[in-house]
Amino acid sequence: MSFRATILTLYPEMFPGPLGVSLSGRALERGDATIETRQIRDFGIGKHRAVDDTPAGGGAGMVLRADVLAAAIDAAAPDGDRRPKLLMSPRGRPLTQRFVRELAAGEGAVIVCGRFEGIDERIIEARGLCEISIGDYVLSGGEIAATVLLDAVIRLLPGVMGNDQSGVHESFERPLLEHPHYTRPAEWEGRRIPPVLTSGDHGAVERWRLAEAERLTRERRPDLLAVPETDKER
Amino acid sequence: MSFRATILTLYPEMFPGPLGVSLSGRALERGDATIETRQIRDFGIGKHRAVDDTPAGGGAGMVLRADVLAAAIDAAAPDGDRRPKLLMSPRGRPLTQRFVRELAAGEGAVIVCGRFEGIDERIIEARGLCEISIGDYVLSGGEIAATVLLDAVIRLLPGVMGNDQSGVHESFERPLLEHPHYTRPAEWEGRRIPPVLTSGDHGAVERWRLAEAERLTRERRPDLLAVPETDKER
Repeated sequence: MSFRATILTLYPEMFPGPLGVSLSGRALERGDATIETRQIRDFGIGKHRAVDDTPAGGGAGMVLRADVLAAAIDAAAPDGDRRPKLLMSPRGRPLTQRFVRELAAGEGAVIVCGRFEGIDERIIEARGLCEISIGDYVLSGGEIAATVLLDAVIRLLPGVMGNDQSGVHESFERPLLEHPHYTRPAEWEGRRIPPVLTSGDHGAVERWRLAEAERLTRERRPDLLAVPETDKER
Repeated sequence: MSFRATILTLYPEMFPGPLGVSLSGRALERGDATIETRQIRDFGIGKHRAVDDTPAGGGAGMVLRADVLAAAIDAAAPDGDRRPKLLMSPRGRPLTQRFVRELAAGEGAVIVCGRFEGIDERIIEARGLCEISIGDYVLSGGEIAATVLLDAVIRLLPGVMGNDQSGVHESFERPLLEHPHYTRPAEWEGRRIPPVLTSGDHGAVERWRLAEAERLTRERRPDLLAVPETDKER
């Protein structure tokens, strides 16, 4: 069973975009994952297929209509479709590697990409959209955020990573940042690879890497070490 | 003066990707911003243009060579190029809207996109790369992260947003999440727009929106309210 993503967007031409290249590109070619897009405008109102209107209460920007989005969502995910319905939104639950893994273990996702000032709140409640944020910054729309989420998910699907080992010991699978990496040449611009790494003592190498990962995490992201016990597994 | 991004990547075909569409697509067409790519492999070693090698100390994955990346960076940013040099990396400083604004006010950026297990630590030190993370999850490479960063920056460049007002009152410009939005129809699936928004009392509308933004932030992201005083301006 392959992972099936359905994306509701006003810019279907943004997909697969960078997902059509490299690791995820090969996964899409093999059918390990599929990405289909639905043009929200196809469900627009009237001759001009209007999808948005001015915000109730006034203010700048436009708001995507609940009735239009409902028609698009209901067409993309009929009754019985068990895939989670996500809305990419800076207001959402921050994306974590744990949630990426949960998604990768499932059947897929229906992903609504917002644009304009926002989307009518009633559709979020009425269709149980789960709001997901990829970070505390503002994008021009949800499409690039959806691309981030799908790239993170696709690389974890069975068979996608060339070396299955690569998926295991990496950033955020443990709550530690990656230790430094080195490769040839042994000396470059007067800088040498730390001698322990070329000592042949595998135990010493592992201890050095763990100590460096802990040091970097303490220095840069002490918040990761303060994560509550129940979330540590992410 | 337009914003100039130079991207060092093994997958130049990933750009402009979604940035070629909609808001940023129009900004690129007008020349408000330019995105140029450099193929790291052009600076590879030997007949096969090798760019990576096995990690010192053993382990899975491959590591991008410092000498290869140095040649690519030095060609892209000769002496006197004052643009910051960024490395997209899950180990980096978390991207914030404040940093996005700083970048948008500058001349551009040189952005190194990692792939494989990692890149040789010595190039980070030797060329003063600033590591930037878009979030606590793992991507297949830095290209989609660079796309996120550039989308966030380009929308803030002068003249890019149709309605300049839209850039001001939005998520993360204040440390509050967005209040709910509503638009027509007034009633949909039995759900009505909150009466205050159609009352015509602008003061009451503003108070309601602020109260809702505060409520959502308290409920979903109390960490944003706990930000130290000095960072609040982001």
